[in-house]
Amino acid sequence: MPAQDFTPAEYETRLSRTRAEMARRGLSVLILADPSNMAWLTGYDGWSFYVPQAVIVHVRDGVLWWGRTMDMPGAAQTTWLSDDDLFDWPEAHVQHPDHHPFDHLAESLQSRGWTAGIGVEMDNYYYSAAAHRVLERALGAGALQDATGLVNWQRAVKSGAELALMRKAGQLTAAMHRVLRETARPGLPKHELVARVQAAGLTGVPGLAGDYPAIVPIAPSAREAAAAHLTWNDKPMQPGEATYFEISGCYQRYHCPVSRTLHLGPPPAEMKRAEEAVLQAVADALAAARPGATCEAVAACVYDALGRAGFEKTSRTGYSVGLSYPPDWGERSMSLRPGDTTELQENMCFHLMPGLWTPEWGLAITETFVVTPDGGQPLTDIPRGIAEIG
Amino acid sequence: MPAQDFTPAEYETRLSRTRAEMARRGLSVLILADPSNMAWLTGYDGWSFYVPQAVIVHVRDGVLWWGRTMDMPGAAQTTWLSDDDLFDWPEAHVQHPDHHPFDHLAESLQSRGWTAGIGVEMDNYYYSAAAHRVLERALGAGALQDATGLVNWQRAVKSGAELALMRKAGQLTAAMHRVLRETARPGLPKHELVARVQAAGLTGVPGLAGDYPAIVPIAPSAREAAAAHLTWNDKPMQPGEATYFEISGCYQRYHCPVSRTLHLGPPPAEMKRAEEAVLQAVADALAAARPGATCEAVAACVYDALGRAGFEKTSRTGYSVGLSYPPDWGERSMSLRPGDTTELQENMCFHLMPGLWTPEWGLAITETFVVTPDGGQPLTDIPRGIAEIG
Repeated sequence: MPAQDFTPAEYETRLSRTRAEMARRGLSVLILADPSNMAWLTGYDGWSFYVPQAVIVHVRDGVLWWGRTMDMPGAAQTTWLSDDDLFDWPEAHVQHPDHHPFDHLAESLQSRGWTAGIGVEMDNYYYSAAAHRVLERALGAGALQDATGLVNWQRAVKSGAELALMRKAGQLTAAMHRVLRETARPGLPKHELVARVQAAGLTGVPGLAGDYPAIVPIAPSAREAAAAHLTWNDKPMQPGEATYFEISGCYQRYHCPVSRTLHLGPPPAEMKRAEEAVLQAVADALAAARPGATCEAVAACVYDALGRAGFEKTSRTGYSVGLSYPPDWGERSMSLRPGDTTELQENMCFHLMPGLWTPEWGLAITETFVVTPDGGQPLTDIPRGIAEIG
Repeated sequence: MPAQDFTPAEYETRLSRTRAEMARRGLSVLILADPSNMAWLTGYDGWSFYVPQAVIVHVRDGVLWWGRTMDMPGAAQTTWLSDDDLFDWPEAHVQHPDHHPFDHLAESLQSRGWTAGIGVEMDNYYYSAAAHRVLERALGAGALQDATGLVNWQRAVKSGAELALMRKAGQLTAAMHRVLRETARPGLPKHELVARVQAAGLTGVPGLAGDYPAIVPIAPSAREAAAAHLTWNDKPMQPGEATYFEISGCYQRYHCPVSRTLHLGPPPAEMKRAEEAVLQAVADALAAARPGATCEAVAACVYDALGRAGFEKTSRTGYSVGLSYPPDWGERSMSLRPGDTTELQENMCFHLMPGLWTPEWGLAITETFVVTPDGGQPLTDIPRGIAEIG
């Protein structure tokens, strides 16, 4: 039974979209090592991606799960595939310097005659340079084609069922932020705060159990927050310091990341000014995020609003989100930034990220939104301004 | 300031060991994309590994951190490197289909004249096939040499300071298991139990704050536990069911994974028999794990003890552990399995994993131990038998 609440028809649609794109690119076979893509097409769920595994889609002839022997029962339990569609590589290949699970995959492809028009996800955490070299040596470089993002792009427009899961994830995110606001206080060691926030996301709300998010809480304070991706430490929270929390609930692997900034005591004038600019940036970007607008046009709203207030942001200001596994909850397809001319479509979802990092502090106020004819609609409801504590 | 409590002399030793091995292999430059290796050599810490980054070691001329602009302040805060040793790739390269951060790295290597004898970690989550192709095209395949595991192997024998951190992680693991035994009860939804266990690991014990482990709790119940790497769900725990928990505390990125099995009510006779065999396997393997014994000899103790009781285990039964980042807390060097003839040395650390998976249930009772002249010494103290609840 798949871990996720999707109908067979929904999986069929996903597969058809994927196969149509394969056909368009002349691919016969697609080897998907990205656990998010594996899950999206089959429902597969498990922390087994630290060893090689893949879902293999033939453009006509079947969908296979391939992985470690001890993970095959997990595939039987979580996917819609039949037992005949599951196959495993020999255990001796686990993290061995002299041979590789992909040796087995290459032989399996050869024995099926699947030796040309093979798409691989060349820029993915779970498809290593070594894996690729094995396939290249066995099948020839000409047999392989880069298909990074092929499935990620099919995931961009969410179904109704997916949106429902993302809104549920958003309820979990809101519960986490509630605990954050209610618990943060001067003197509380940050790791204790993070422990409670994370527990709130997992405990969830009645009827909604939390799963592990693809990124752990990012929670830097004061000058630490000049850096973008520090996690937490054991320092007590201090009056006069800002901490931003980039966190997400996760429901059946779907995410709804939202960042908020806490300030212990009244924020300094410059940070208040930045807050005002960021709130304007969020409002402007949401208003602009209608079907037909480009990613770069939405991004420009952010850069402009910040620029009018004298703040410069040089990093991308958002990206597509949805189903994901560590280490990234982004979908790695669209980015809200200059040069991304992708047109928004209804029911695409983005994490709008107008974070500002200065040498002295960081300020992050973000929203995950769905594209609607009326603009970007946040998928959860969390007070947006700097939370002033105490 | 490095996030970890190591002296400059300890980092010096690590670097010397690494450079000696580079010299032995004829490498001038080593590009380390594995965040564990980056942290071990420089202290770098941050959830930034979802984009390309590396520590670059020249065999004589310096150590550099390279990453995304917004993560450079994090490198300044967490490493012992000077600001001159940090450099960044242009933000426009973030997850872009047409160009890649490694384009920038290739140019940087060329501008330094570092164009031959370059080691890369070909079989690592954070060195993609695409990254390798960029370097190959820019520098020629002959310039690159596979150095997967080069640093991982230097990490195998732990220093006194590292062992102290692993024992602290073990205290966190023990706190997690204590909460597990005290909280599990029939009817408790499993995600609520996991939330409390995870919070216990983060909240820690007085003076010890928890960090995020490299693997989230693995916690399958009853027939789910036939699969090796399922995480959790919202089902209430049932009388008559076993659940095994593979969990680890994490202290300053060091781990001490320990699995235990809970049974709600008295376990069936066959599971008790399996427990007895597994306890014997653990005892025999620990007794054998002295300096000079081989990995396969220690593993044989496990297979033999299980075999004498009529249980067959075909998977590896342990691996080297220590400092790590997701998705694996193993060090990916030594494995306790047939064919691994590595000789144990004092102060190596292993997660001994004699897990048994049957079609009907799974049983996991594991220990993380340090090799001493008297045999393997567990790094924490947690009641070993099946915990019978209620």
